[in-house]
Amino acid sequence: MAKTNPGRFFEDYRIGQVIDHAVPRTVSGGERALYHALYPARHALYSSDEFARSVGLPSAPLDDLAAFHLVFGKTVPDVSLNAVANLGYAEGRWLKPVYAGDTLRSSSEVIGLKQNSNGKSGVVYVRTRGTNQRGETVLEYCRWVMVRKRDLDAPAPETVLPDLKKVLAPEDLVIPEGLDFSNYDFTLAGETHRWGDYAVGEQIDHVDGVTVEEAEHMLATRLWQNTAKVHFDATQREDGKRLIYGGHVISLARALSFNGLANAQMIVGLNGGAHANPCFAGDTVRVWSEVLDRAETAVPGVGALRLRLVATKGGAPFVLRDAEGKYLPDVLLDLDYWALIPR
Amino acid sequence: MAKTNPGRFFEDYRIGQVIDHAVPRTVSGGERALYHALYPARHALYSSDEFARSVGLPSAPLDDLAAFHLVFGKTVPDVSLNAVANLGYAEGRWLKPVYAGDTLRSSSEVIGLKQNSNGKSGVVYVRTRGTNQRGETVLEYCRWVMVRKRDLDAPAPETVLPDLKKVLAPEDLVIPEGLDFSNYDFTLAGETHRWGDYAVGEQIDHVDGVTVEEAEHMLATRLWQNTAKVHFDATQREDGKRLIYGGHVISLARALSFNGLANAQMIVGLNGGAHANPCFAGDTVRVWSEVLDRAETAVPGVGALRLRLVATKGGAPFVLRDAEGKYLPDVLLDLDYWALIPR
Amino acid sequence: MAKTNPGRFFEDYRIGQVIDHAVPRTVSGGERALYHALYPARHALYSSDEFARSVGLPSAPLDDLAAFHLVFGKTVPDVSLNAVANLGYAEGRWLKPVYAGDTLRSSSEVIGLKQNSNGKSGVVYVRTRGTNQRGETVLEYCRWVMVRKRDLDAPAPETVLPDLKKVLAPEDLVIPEGLDFSNYDFTLAGETHRWGDYAVGEQIDHVDGVTVEEAEHMLATRLWQNTAKVHFDATQREDGKRLIYGGHVISLARALSFNGLANAQMIVGLNGGAHANPCFAGDTVRVWSEVLDRAETAVPGVGALRLRLVATKGGAPFVLRDAEGKYLPDVLLDLDYWALIPR
Repeated sequence: MAKTNPGRFFEDYRIGQVIDHAVPRTVSGGERALYHALYPARHALYSSDEFARSVGLPSAPLDDLAAFHLVFGKTVPDVSLNAVANLGYAEGRWLKPVYAGDTLRSSSEVIGLKQNSNGKSGVVYVRTRGTNQRGETVLEYCRWVMVRKRDLDAPAPETVLPDLKKVLAPEDLVIPEGLDFSNYDFTLAGETHRWGDYAVGEQIDHVDGVTVEEAEHMLATRLWQNTAKVHFDATQREDGKRLIYGGHVISLARALSFNGLANAQMIVGLNGGAHANPCFAGDTVRVWSEVLDRAETAVPGVGALRLRLVATKGGAPFVLRDAEGKYLPDVLLDLDYWALIPR
Repeated sequence: MAKTNPGRFFEDYRIGQVIDHAVPRTVSGGERALYHALYPARHALYSSDEFARSVGLPSAPLDDLAAFHLVFGKTVPDVSLNAVANLGYAEGRWLKPVYAGDTLRSSSEVIGLKQNSNGKSGVVYVRTRGTNQRGETVLEYCRWVMVRKRDLDAPAPETVLPDLKKVLAPEDLVIPEGLDFSNYDFTLAGETHRWGDYAVGEQIDHVDGVTVEEAEHMLATRLWQNTAKVHFDATQREDGKRLIYGGHVISLARALSFNGLANAQMIVGLNGGAHANPCFAGDTVRVWSEVLDRAETAVPGVGALRLRLVATKGGAPFVLRDAEGKYLPDVLLDLDYWALIPR
Repeated sequence: MAKTNPGRFFEDYRIGQVIDHAVPRTVSGGERALYHALYPARHALYSSDEFARSVGLPSAPLDDLAAFHLVFGKTVPDVSLNAVANLGYAEGRWLKPVYAGDTLRSSSEVIGLKQNSNGKSGVVYVRTRGTNQRGETVLEYCRWVMVRKRDLDAPAPETVLPDLKKVLAPEDLVIPEGLDFSNYDFTLAGETHRWGDYAVGEQIDHVDGVTVEEAEHMLATRLWQNTAKVHFDATQREDGKRLIYGGHVISLARALSFNGLANAQMIVGLNGGAHANPCFAGDTVRVWSEVLDRAETAVPGVGALRLRLVATKGGAPFVLRDAEGKYLPDVLLDLDYWALIPR
């Protein structure tokens, strides 16, 4: 027993503490192929080295969300093994594309703590950074989770709430070095819609659906070395169901949004996100998007769209909450992100 | 709604029209590994770089059928999104092997149109070409599908029926540059049977069977970026079943035929094929082959076999049709192809 | 029928016979990615090229057990197609790490034969060697299986029982060239426990569990080109169940043992193993370990642990056999191996 990792409890975190997470990981064409087998991913920049070169990158990067899952997975044994709930994300920024051959590691800094009034748990805020083998930060994001206390008598820490942006400003977004959409091939990308073709408030029903299988979400979740028991062990819940990793729903939703957002190529900012309801094998996932904002970027020809991406397991598109403001029971995911698109 | 692809309807096609399909794709060792995980593929030339070199190729190519699925998948959003039925294939030729690092794209030319007498749909014939990053055609084939009309009042086009070969002649087959079976290692390949050991009319029961799972066919179909809803979305059919992509059955059947045809290494011609009945998860697929013809090729030591490959989900081998000439209900696939084998 | 492989029967084996197995296989990053998707594998040396370099290797090797499955899979059509039971392993040694780009083949020498008293079957002992493209042996192990006779009247061969070591001595273990743990990063590896922290007799409950799916074990077993029908064809058994390849359970168990044995990085010896009971889809696999021995090695800083690894599908940890010495019905695997760990 003494040899296995019991995970950290609420009273084990301190403001300013930096946790270097274990198990660095090298990616290759294998991870890219698996990502395309697990999700209906079709964004050309991630599918074709030639297309990536035509827009100024050295080759097709690993999908932005695959990089996110890789960095996130490493934090699970240190941050969320005793978590009761995954409460939110903020200030997610993709800083460098990840390429085949890169090796990623993660570290997290504790930036906020607040014990719950019941004294049994508390909220831990971390800022997580993923770095490559050259020490460059490829990705950073904030996340807060509710974590149980081991010892209910442990004294409550001083409450520190981080000052997190509700939405990243366009100038916070980092455009990958060299990115140039002046030779962008809309035919190969699959759609003709440019930045200017999307209006704020516009809603898109992405039409397609995928019925999820146990083997698929477990393959995906393991690939990112996420060790949370509830995703793999059917004896963990009374109903015998395995809870699907929220990130699996995020990737599935993003891939399904290709149909209507084929040119929203790169995710560069994550403003926030809620896993509104749990997803289980057998659910048929559909998605819709809403254009929340549009912005120019420092690079001519490269525009940014702020998008809401909603995944559901039933119900009509474009409805999100009930009269009291609660997410409808069929809503799985409500994500707010920035993507780059040719102007 | 306006942003998503509604697919083309029968009246949207014109003779001579060339459609450049979206989303080029770079392949790597990841696709090879997945192909071997998804199918019981054992042909040595595709499994081992060393074996491939011993027969004159630079390394093990991507499986011929994986190349086919990759090229085919790209055509789905443009050709078969509103298809009622996939009617046939002809004149399929593999012209260049595909290697790790290659990037493939597809385009299709409309070569035939015939409105159905009911006025509600019509048959579209296309010749599809897959090309690599050097602009070389790696694969071409003809395919015809029945497509719905959007507007029943749209005028019928002039009927044009392409003149397609029932069977490719041996001189139509392209032998990969450098292929040389003079150092072919029959022990490593797994069987001793050469070209001369197969007689026209000979039938082979390949003995092995595979019971198909939902997760497997969806992983495979997604890997080739085939977006047809019926393969992924269990709510598309009244019976709640997901229709398995016909190409999944083709690859499964070909891989199972290794046991008895281990030396029929490379597929170079597709004469025709019928998806006789739908395949669903839970079906146990078995296959049998019949030698339809034998031919010499321009390369000494390289022979060609014309083979019928039949996949079933039950029933006895070697029976295909009922008294009225209709495929028996357990027959899934009837494929007619040319393969290269050492003489 | 004549063209397919009927497999060898007991009377087909001769002492000293060497069988070169078919279908060499080249591995790439694809196999590594799939291994990480199929199993919760987290040992840093196999996950990160950078970590591997920090301990003196050129890059992250293919997981030791993946190499084992690859070599083993090739033997199935020649050794165990007509096997009634897989009886044991001994003298397994990993001699060279396998890297992306390597091509493996296998051959087996018959080292023992003993007809059963019922005259219907016999036990065949083989020593199997896996070699790379440079002809270097990467792995060797002995295995014995019970094989049916084709002709019950075939005369019994002279009984030859090989003299196999019950346990490999520490000096039998081969330490990979260049391995040096002096810069070993325990934080990145995930645990602080060194060789000296493990006591002989110590038992570890690895806590985590995985509920197994049909698609997963079939993907894994196919990836290693293992062709045994019972793993794939649900019509082979009266109960309609597919028997899970014992090697799938071995890899799953080893990966689950990370939690408590994160630094037991490399498997270098297989002393023995028993597949105590069959595993089927739906079983939730858990594991426990026992430290059987500790040894120094010729390389300073590199220690060896002899470990028992037990996989179960229920029941309490640390209990293995009933009062009569029979494995308990929930025990799936009892494996005895040597692993390298920093001192």
